[in-house]
Amino acid sequence: MTEPAFQDLYPEDFAHCYGCGRLNTEGYQIKSRWDGEEAVARFTPQAHHTSVPGFVYGGLIASLMDCHAMGTAAAARHRADGLTLGDGWLRRYVTASLNVNYLKPTPIGVPLEVRARPTQIKGRKVVVEAWLLAGTVECARGQAVAVEMPDSMVQQR
Amino acid sequence: MTEPAFQDLYPEDFAHCYGCGRLNTEGYQIKSRWDGEEAVARFTPQAHHTSVPGFVYGGLIASLMDCHAMGTAAAARHRADGLTLGDGWLRRYVTASLNVNYLKPTPIGVPLEVRARPTQIKGRKVVVEAWLLAGTVECARGQAVAVEMPDSMVQQR
Repeated sequence: MTEPAFQDLYPEDFAHCYGCGRLNTEGYQIKSRWDGEEAVARFTPQAHHTSVPGFVYGGLIASLMDCHAMGTAAAARHRADGLTLGDGWLRRYVTASLNVNYLKPTPIGVPLEVRARPTQIKGRKVVVEAWLLAGTVECARGQAVAVEMPDSMVQQR
Repeated sequence: MTEPAFQDLYPEDFAHCYGCGRLNTEGYQIKSRWDGEEAVARFTPQAHHTSVPGFVYGGLIASLMDCHAMGTAAAARHRADGLTLGDGWLRRYVTASLNVNYLKPTPIGVPLEVRARPTQIKGRKVVVEAWLLAGTVECARGQAVAVEMPDSMVQQR
C-alpha cells in the first residue's frame, strides 16, 4: 500500500494551500512522500507554466520547492517525534525563508522531480535542502527554513 | 500619459511568462513601472491564492518578486544604456537566484505592492532588492540575481 502524501495528513483547516492543499481545486496539489531519507514530489508543469518558450517558470519552481520543503519539514518533525505517518495529523509549517538557485533552464513538457531532505530539526524550526531534477539533470537547488505555524496565524471562524 | 509597463516592452517571443507575460492569458500578468528610483507592481491575489486561511501563498509572493525583479533588471539596464522606455524592446532577463524572507504573514484579499530597486548593474548581471507591502506593512523582502538571457535559451522555431 502506498503511504499517504504528507499534504494529505494536514488538518482540514490547513489543506487549502494553492501549492499543495488537497482541498484547493484550483491549485497545484503537490504531493510529497518519503523515499528513504529523502522526500520526493513529482509534478509535470502545463504548457502555460512557461517563462520563455521551452522552459518552466521560475516562480513555479520556487512554489514546488516551497510546498515540498514545508511538507518535508512536517514529516521530518513527525518522524523525529517517534510517530509514523497516519498517527494523527502532521503539524503545519510555514516558510520563514526560501532561497532558490536556478542552475540550468528547466525544460517544460517533461515530468519534474523535486527532492528534499531535512538538514536541521530544532525546536519549532526545520531547515530543508531541496533540489529539482528534470530526468537526471539537476536544474535548481535551494534551501527553506520552515517554522511551525504560530497560533497567531490561526484565524477564528 | 502612463508609461508602458516593463513587461509590455518584452519582445513578443518572450511575452508568454506565467508570471508576467502579456500574451499568457492564464498567468498573473504582473506589470511593473518606475516610481522614481524604485519600481512598483500592484497585484491583488484571488481567494484561491491562499496558504493557510487568511494569508497569501508564499509561492505566489516569490513569483511576484521574481517577475518584478526581472522586469526591474531589464528596465534598469535599459536606463543605464541611456535609453528611455519605448526606445526598442527591453532585454529579457532570467533568474539566477531568488531569496525571499517572509517577515510577516501576508493578508489575503487586499491589494499588494511589490517594490524593487537595482543594487548592482554589471555586465550581463543585475542584482535587485525587492520587498512586498500590504498597506504600509512590509511582509516580505528578498533579493534576486538577474542575468541577461543567454542565446542558448532561445529556441529555434
